[in-house]
Amino acid sequence: MTRTLRIVGLEGLPEIQPGDDLGHLLSSTLRTEGARTGDVVAVTQKVVSKAEGRLVSGRDLADVVADETVRVVARRGDLVIAETVHGLVCANAGVDASNVNEGTFSLLPVDPDGSAERLRASFSERLGLDLGVIITDTFGRPWRNGVVNVSIGCAGLPAAVDLRGRTDHHDRALAATIVALADEIAAASGLVMAKDARIPAALVRGVDRLGAPDGRAADLIRPAEEDLFRFGER
Amino acid sequence: MTRTLRIVGLEGLPEIQPGDDLGHLLSSTLRTEGARTGDVVAVTQKVVSKAEGRLVSGRDLADVVADETVRVVARRGDLVIAETVHGLVCANAGVDASNVNEGTFSLLPVDPDGSAERLRASFSERLGLDLGVIITDTFGRPWRNGVVNVSIGCAGLPAAVDLRGRTDHHDRALAATIVALADEIAAASGLVMAKDARIPAALVRGVDRLGAPDGRAADLIRPAEEDLFRFGER
Repeated sequence: MTRTLRIVGLEGLPEIQPGDDLGHLLSSTLRTEGARTGDVVAVTQKVVSKAEGRLVSGRDLADVVADETVRVVARRGDLVIAETVHGLVCANAGVDASNVNEGTFSLLPVDPDGSAERLRASFSERLGLDLGVIITDTFGRPWRNGVVNVSIGCAGLPAAVDLRGRTDHHDRALAATIVALADEIAAASGLVMAKDARIPAALVRGVDRLGAPDGRAADLIRPAEEDLFRFGER
Repeated sequence: MTRTLRIVGLEGLPEIQPGDDLGHLLSSTLRTEGARTGDVVAVTQKVVSKAEGRLVSGRDLADVVADETVRVVARRGDLVIAETVHGLVCANAGVDASNVNEGTFSLLPVDPDGSAERLRASFSERLGLDLGVIITDTFGRPWRNGVVNVSIGCAGLPAAVDLRGRTDHHDRALAATIVALADEIAAASGLVMAKDARIPAALVRGVDRLGAPDGRAADLIRPAEEDLFRFGER
């Protein structure tokens, strides 16, 4: 059986405002697109944060970033690579000025795994479908230019799949022992999400869950004590 | 117009041996799958390295890794995070024991961008199609558990897309100024490539090249002097 993946950008969402019912708004689009049980819905952090009212105005960026930071991992000039309360390590602790009004910054959701779980419950209730949900954000990486989408929230699918104990077709242990499945899906969804935010979500069909149980995006955060690059005092 | 991406795992390749004509072997599969001009073919490093004879036998892993290393970025126990001659930073300098014979290690291609370009030329000649090609490898990341596919070779499409100067729909500068397009495609292809190497390639249709010129995977390597995490002497 040939494995085929299909990823559709979800268009037509209105500009999201604090208090909007994102599950309701996305459900309409998902119904139009013919979503099916087993599909995964990828949603950008930005619309989740807006709907949850995670916006601040009238403050300096540096102060907002400081409030969202639990550890400064690296700093150069105005750029701060910071660990957030979630354990995520990213530029400006996830504080972002794009695709929001002038003078406003968006913050990461308080509990992105919880946000994903609530969307999943909303889709289940409204559509009668068992859908996976990931919340994506756009992160830079050490050593490599450019950004890719990663999964900061996850519900209804495995986020990290542990293949230890499985073998390749030479019966040798697989080198890639843990696959960051939710990050692969997030990066893939970045290919259909418009960079100007007109397409803030995607429907992904055909993901092989690799027989793993559902997990959370928190499973993708390497514990600080195992991390060779988590510098700075917490 | 709804943006849709379709990714198909390419099955049925024989076990690749040194000297095999990978372009020829993949062309047959691509013809069967109905490849079209504009599609992108993602191929794992492992089969490229095998076809190019980048295998070593009868030596200790540590010695082989040392030979492939130009800079040790971090080390813990047996794990070496090393910079390769290409500027890639990855575990064991890309030396890998999975999906090769016992006692054998695979090395990264000498020039992965050149490997991609040769495959692209082969597809053009054999199929009469203008296809993008990326060579993928599976890398770990600081701060996050698990591996994702990245692009270590690229031809016929932009690898990094610079969006500086473009604006969001609030007319504010886009925060994600450089998009690692080839890495997004690589990660997406990881969703259909079997982890036991029976599916070492994928056909990706529907990539938006974002109006950028073709590039090389070398464009995705951050210059050491701009990198906050490139430790160690070269």
